[in-house]
Parts: sequence; C-alpha cells; structure tokens
Amino acid sequence: MSTDQSLYSIDIDSDQQAMTLALEQAALGMFTTTPNPRVGCVIVKDRRIIGAGFTQPPGGNHAEIQAMKDAQERGNDVHGATAYVTLEPCSHFGRTPPCADALIKAGLGRVVSAMTDPNPLVAGKGLEKLQAAGIAVVSGLMQDAAYEMNIGFFKRMQQGTPWIRMKSAASLDGKTALHNGKSQWITGQAARDDGHFWRARACAIVTGIGTVKDDNPQLNVRAVDTPRQPRRIVIDSKLTVSPSANILAGGGTWVFTASEDRGKIAALEDQGTEVIILPNANNKVDLPRVIAELGKRQLNEVHIEAGSKLNASLIREGCVDELLLYLAPNLLGDGRSMFDLPALDDLSGKISLRFHEVKQIGEDLRILARFR
Amino acid sequence: MSTDQSLYSIDIDSDQQAMTLALEQAALGMFTTTPNPRVGCVIVKDRRIIGAGFTQPPGGNHAEIQAMKDAQERGNDVHGATAYVTLEPCSHFGRTPPCADALIKAGLGRVVSAMTDPNPLVAGKGLEKLQAAGIAVVSGLMQDAAYEMNIGFFKRMQQGTPWIRMKSAASLDGKTALHNGKSQWITGQAARDDGHFWRARACAIVTGIGTVKDDNPQLNVRAVDTPRQPRRIVIDSKLTVSPSANILAGGGTWVFTASEDRGKIAALEDQGTEVIILPNANNKVDLPRVIAELGKRQLNEVHIEAGSKLNASLIREGCVDELLLYLAPNLLGDGRSMFDLPALDDLSGKISLRFHEVKQIGEDLRILARFR
Repeated sequence: MSTDQSLYSIDIDSDQQAMTLALEQAALGMFTTTPNPRVGCVIVKDRRIIGAGFTQPPGGNHAEIQAMKDAQERGNDVHGATAYVTLEPCSHFGRTPPCADALIKAGLGRVVSAMTDPNPLVAGKGLEKLQAAGIAVVSGLMQDAAYEMNIGFFKRMQQGTPWIRMKSAASLDGKTALHNGKSQWITGQAARDDGHFWRARACAIVTGIGTVKDDNPQLNVRAVDTPRQPRRIVIDSKLTVSPSANILAGGGTWVFTASEDRGKIAALEDQGTEVIILPNANNKVDLPRVIAELGKRQLNEVHIEAGSKLNASLIREGCVDELLLYLAPNLLGDGRSMFDLPALDDLSGKISLRFHEVKQIGEDLRILARFR
Repeated sequence: MSTDQSLYSIDIDSDQQAMTLALEQAALGMFTTTPNPRVGCVIVKDRRIIGAGFTQPPGGNHAEIQAMKDAQERGNDVHGATAYVTLEPCSHFGRTPPCADALIKAGLGRVVSAMTDPNPLVAGKGLEKLQAAGIAVVSGLMQDAAYEMNIGFFKRMQQGTPWIRMKSAASLDGKTALHNGKSQWITGQAARDDGHFWRARACAIVTGIGTVKDDNPQLNVRAVDTPRQPRRIVIDSKLTVSPSANILAGGGTWVFTASEDRGKIAALEDQGTEVIILPNANNKVDLPRVIAELGKRQLNEVHIEAGSKLNASLIREGCVDELLLYLAPNLLGDGRSMFDLPALDDLSGKISLRFHEVKQIGEDLRILARFR
C-alpha cells in the first residue's frame, strides 16, 4: 500500500501513465520480494487511482491483493475498475492463493498487464482465467521496463540460473587499481553509493578469497536503506578464509570451496558459515556448478564484486550476464587491469558484449553492458 | 546560401527555433571556414525565413552577407527583418568589410546573436555598433551550442593555441590493440566513419613517427565528403620518416623534429614537406612549442591520432584539451594500454578529466572527456 497521498490525486489520462505508476509501485519492493518477483499494481476508476500496492516479502500479499486491500481501506469500490499490474496475475496456489481468482471475485472490469508470466508452464493462464470470467484483458504494455525489473527472476524461471551481474570500477584508461593495489577511490561518492543500490537489489553478493584477504570487506549494504541484507558468498578453492573475516561476521555466509578439510569446515560451520564443496577437475571451485547451485537455492540476481582473477575466470567460463561498470573521468597510467584475461593473437577471439544503458552518476559514467 | 527549399516554408515561432536553424547553417561550414569560425545566419520576417547563409571559405563572404545576398536573390526585402547570427557580427575590416556595417546599411530591424566575440579586443563592439544605429540587439541565445561549434577558434583567440582533441579507440577493458599490435578493428564501421567526421572538422591531424612506421597511414579524410583535407603533421624527433611514407604523399605535410640533419631535411623539402626544428632539452620534439607554433599558424582544432607513447607525452606535458574516445563493447584481455603513462604510487597523482558528452555510435560508445 502506498503512503504517498499525491498518488491518489493524479488525473490518469492513459494506460501508459497508469502502468508507469504501477512500475513505480513495483520498485518499492526492489529490496524485499526475493525469491518472488517485484510486482506493482494500481487500480484506476473514473480516471483516479483508488488503490495501489506492491509485492510484500515472501508469504505476504502479492501486489494485486495489496492494491485491493488499499482500495478497501480507503472506502473505494473496485467493482468495474481497471487493474494495472506489471506481471500477469498468478493463477496457481503458491504461498498465497491465486490473484486471478481474487480479481474475479472482486469484480474488476479490466486488467492491463505489462507482460505474461515468462514461466512457460503458467504463461497466459492467469490472463485466460480472467478473460473466461468476462474481464477485459490487455497484455504487453511497457513490457521492456517490466522485464528489466525482474530480469533475474525471469532468467531463473526460464533457465534455472540467476542473472549474474559483475560490478567493476575503473579509470577511463581501464585501470581498477594502481600497481600497489590502491583503489580508494577511483570513482566518486555518488557512484559508490549507486553501487550499494545494486548490491541491495541482489539476492547475494559474491567475492573471491583474494579480495577477502586484501580488503577484508563486509560486503553488506550501507549507503542505501534496506530491511534485507543480501547473502554473502565467498569463492575459496583452498578454504583459507579466516573465521574472523568481516564477510563471515554475523553468520549466514556461504563459502564455496574445492577443499575437503573437515576440521576447517567444522570450524566455519560452528561460526554460522555454510561450506559447499564443488570442485572441478583442476581442484578449483567449479564456477558453472556454483551458478547452478545458486539457481537451485532460488537466487534471482547475483552481484559479483571480486578481483581481476575471479572476474576473468567467471567471464571465461561463461558465468556472467552483465557488466556493471563505473568509469571515472581520470587516467591512472600503468596499473591493474580490469580483468586478468589472457592475451589474444587475433581479434576474432574478443569477448563480445552490447551496451545496454549508459548514465552519468555524479562525475562518473555507469555502463551496463551485456554479454552476447 | 541554403539550397534546402523547405527551410523557407517553416513557420518560425520563437527566437530559439530561428537560432537552431542558424546553428544548422553554421554547421554547413564545418569543414571549410578555417581559420575563420563557422558562423550561420538566418533572416526572419513575418515568421518566415527570407534568407540564410553561412561563412564561406577564407576571403569569401561571412554568414550575414551570404544570408542578405540569399534574401535579395529570392526577391525578399530584409528591411526591418530580424537576423539571427551564431556569433556577434564583426565590426572590423579583415579580409572582408565589417558585417555590422552591412546589416545597418540594409536596414535590419533586430539582430539576435548567440554570443559575443570572445576576442577581448573586439567583444561587444559589433553589437554596440548595431545598437548605436538603432537596431534592437539581443545576445546570449544558445550560447553553449554556439561556443562548441567554434571551440578551437575561441581558444586560439583567447589563448593563442588550438583546441587539441586526442582520438583513441579501445575495448571496454581499455585496450587499444592486442599484444601483437593488431587493432583492425576493435570498433565498428559506424564509429570509424564518425572518426573521419572529426578528422574532417580539424585543421590538422597529428601523429607520431611510431604510427607512421607501424601503420603507414594516409591520415586523410575518406569516410565523409569534404572539399578540404586537413593538414597532416608528424612528430619525428630523430627525423627518420621515409620520404615515401603515405603521410607525405602529395606534399604539404609538416614534420616537427629535434634533428638538424640538413641532408634529410633537404630531401623532405624537395618532396614538398616542411620540416620544423623544435628540440627540447632532451633532444626530443618540444611538444608545448609545437602547440604554440600551430596556434601561430592559425590552426583552430587539431586532431591527434597517435600511439600510446606520443599520446602519453602530450597528456603529461599538458598539451591536450579533450579525449575523443570510442569504446567498443568487447573485452580483449592482456594487450596494449591506451596511454603509456607511468605508474602512480598514490591516487592523488591521477590525471583528472570531466565527461562532456557520451553518445552511442553504432554499437560503440563515443565519449568526449575534457581535461581540467
């Protein structure tokens, strides 16, 4: 339910305007809905919003139910109204009963959905149910924006693995640190705060043992308010992480390793850390199997903040979907490169991406580029 | 004079709209006005453009005269009309008589100028002259766009030196070539063609002897139509350029050197090349003196396309105003860095710029960043 009173006094002139507001509702669940998708809903009658809501944390109401409840609490009758939802209403029993049934029961006149559910097993079923009950249905309005909002959930539904976003920050000449490792700070405050927003929306933050030893980071969200901290994950082939490392503080951290050192594992487990053994043939952590495991554990978006070696391994093993790159307007000269990728003999061996979005954040650029 | 008939049938609703069209006129002189600034003019009467023009090559008419001539040829009377000019009309005798006098004589009613002349010796004099003659005057409309159009001319007027723009093309991980030197092509066709536009608008293109020996480039404009080729310049401390190098073909190239090898100089001069000896204390070409010399020779914009060594020297010696950087959406791994700048021990030694403009060109990004 929205507490923004002005929302209810806007004149609604178009479906697109209403859907934009539904997407803004969805964004209110950005940090909290996981493993569910972030969905928003506004209910419009006589050109006014009479109810609004977004997905509550797991086990709580879905967006449609929240919006209807909001309307009821405001004394508004949703009968014959139009509901704008950023994802097709569900038609199955999960942790909560099907939203499609609730919309039918409440007598909504029309439902506009930004997109159908990408899960092939349920795609279209919610809309069909509504239509069969005599409700007018439109789907596909502002689909791209709705898709981006839940890109990780959708990837997991379709491929079983999370959306992997790798964050890096570099100078304009492509250096992430000086030769002596100094990197605080290459980018400005605004970019670093923005980085915490991307941490906060992720289900988990992954780093490597090298970064843990060099920087001893907490890898939690500090610069933005969130009621949920992402899970922290360390890739540590030889299981050399110190039980007193900041990243293990408070428990709940997952450590992926290739080691079977039972004593070390027990010590870490005693302290609240879960150790998962996933070796590959080279006795390193099997990174694709890590990604598969994270999918099984219902992670939607995974945020990587690691050093150039782990970054390069993840890229080479095809584990990364997107680069989140902050480029600072400065030159550092000879220093550490972004990724420890091997030298090529021919340009045909280059790793290709496409630019998805570029935005200035403070004095820096934020580039989202996706692997092809 | 414009040959675009549709220009004369637009309804002009605002000063800004008219000035936008005047700026479009100015852009028609982008490749040809040097060493003069690119200026455009449209004359508006009864909400219609009755004449338009832009600065002709040196010795030819200025924009205002062209626009009045255009109006006359179309049978239009400029008496009482408003002239929109992208730079304050001149008030002095140069290669041509003062435009301010011509506007007064023709009886214009109002003159709107995007900016005053930045040359402190003449700033405001043209507008004062108009005002003294009873013409209504406005100045400062769309000043930023007008300034960018002639950024090199203005820098030369104010500081005596050209605007130095350094072009580079790199992968997203900051590499300009593979370890073996291969770099054709990192960026796409659209970006490479766009690079020729920036060459074409420059008064000269500068490279180093390393690039001449490695790539034997022509360094002329091919991908865009231009009636004027920029001058080509080689920085060649030891004067080892081959007289048969492509960059010397056709004559007119300037070679800056620290060598006094009279035999080599004579051979190059015989072939149409000018050799300028400007050594520094290390017996290398004195780069700041080169820039000063280019200012004396009335170059407004200078385009650098050189290797990482000369690039780095120019940057370190404070000779560069702007980076024109094409970033390709790919990763090359270990390879050649953008600039051979020395390693820093502390981030306080970083070289700072600010982002001026970022645009997607084909699949690549074009970044303009300016040194502070």
